[in-house]
Amino acid sequence: MKYVLITGASSGIGLAMSHEFAQKGHNLIIVARSEDKLLQLKQSLISEYGIDVQVKAVDLSISGAAQSLYDQCKKFEVEVLINNAGFGDFSNIWDMNLEKAENMLNLNVNALTMLSLNYVRDYHDKPATLINVASIGGYKMFPTAVTYCATKFFVSAFTEGIAEDLKVGNKQMKAKVLAPAATATDFFNQAYTNAGLEAEAATDRSQYTPASVLADYTYQLYQSDQVVGYVENEQLILQGPKFDFVANKL
Amino acid sequence: MKYVLITGASSGIGLAMSHEFAQKGHNLIIVARSEDKLLQLKQSLISEYGIDVQVKAVDLSISGAAQSLYDQCKKFEVEVLINNAGFGDFSNIWDMNLEKAENMLNLNVNALTMLSLNYVRDYHDKPATLINVASIGGYKMFPTAVTYCATKFFVSAFTEGIAEDLKVGNKQMKAKVLAPAATATDFFNQAYTNAGLEAEAATDRSQYTPASVLADYTYQLYQSDQVVGYVENEQLILQGPKFDFVANKL
Repeated sequence: MKYVLITGASSGIGLAMSHEFAQKGHNLIIVARSEDKLLQLKQSLISEYGIDVQVKAVDLSISGAAQSLYDQCKKFEVEVLINNAGFGDFSNIWDMNLEKAENMLNLNVNALTMLSLNYVRDYHDKPATLINVASIGGYKMFPTAVTYCATKFFVSAFTEGIAEDLKVGNKQMKAKVLAPAATATDFFNQAYTNAGLEAEAATDRSQYTPASVLADYTYQLYQSDQVVGYVENEQLILQGPKFDFVANKL
Repeated sequence: MKYVLITGASSGIGLAMSHEFAQKGHNLIIVARSEDKLLQLKQSLISEYGIDVQVKAVDLSISGAAQSLYDQCKKFEVEVLINNAGFGDFSNIWDMNLEKAENMLNLNVNALTMLSLNYVRDYHDKPATLINVASIGGYKMFPTAVTYCATKFFVSAFTEGIAEDLKVGNKQMKAKVLAPAATATDFFNQAYTNAGLEAEAATDRSQYTPASVLADYTYQLYQSDQVVGYVENEQLILQGPKFDFVANKL
């Protein structure tokens, strides 16, 4: 039995992705911090779509948690791994909350990397797909979101690089970057540490891409031959790697 | 009394930078893992240049070490912080040594970020300079160096973003990215996990930029009004931010 593993599955884009992949008939391993939310989601996915659902409650921002999660999932065949868990940390760079920033690095960079490297090691010769959720902020820098954008530059460069190495090595596995623009989730309420800054930045968030549309874009990216799914003006642009690649080794 | 703090000071580019800044009359706080090497370096810097040298032996790849180092240095006035410590991890992406990769993330990304954010918080209204050492691999991706390059994409994006936020905020502090090309140090011997891969990649390393030249480039970057010091064909190109910046907040 094959599974799609989705981190950050209990809310936002990850919740919408869970419904999208379940609706298409995939069994799921859903991962988030809250076991309560995951168990509720499991029930609704089972009753709506008749799929199998495994629940893993874990805080991936804790050192070692990503490796432990991966080890627990070794008994399942994971046909798709979606590293969706992540959060923003928006502030003037001189006002950053250091603890929040460190947690963001641990989740957005370290946990995603450990899960990706484990998965590539075990599945590179199989028809498997790694989808890492970056952001348009992983290709261009936004003010007062510097550290967050840098974590997403990491994700987009890392994942494009994996895709290219797999292609050059003639491996079956595919790696893909999803780069959402602002999406209608709780992300922004969590991201702003400073309410004054948030009020200043606030645009009409009702205009943001609905999470369900983003989930549909994710499925299109999954089924496509392209590496990057970039969202611009609420449209999905499927394309090859965006960064410069050098042919010779360092 | 003012100090220039240099991480990774005991060898390679950091050692050459220590001599360069000492020669120009700056007092130094030198940081590396080996206390023996640091004490030797301290003696030679004092006898050659007559400056004051503080020694901090610390392994910055250990969680919490960067914060502890910063706290210990709070009693000194740090006019320049150079985050130079870092290493490479070159391998086919499916053969990565996960422990080495995790240590690399902790050093190249997490420690650099925590030192940078502490420094920006405390010095943004002072004539201080943050110099983060990225790589040309922080602007373009090299095969079999994917995770390493991604850590350097983080560094270059993060540091360009800090520079821009400081500029927009009319702060006195400057932030700068040094992006070296291949430099004649022990870096490559440490980076390749797989000797066969190294032999395959090996070019004539005697042609690489000498570390002393790189240190001179670092000083030029420090004295310039530019944000990025990019090395190409053994020449230093001083320039503004290379990534795309968006004016409106996310």
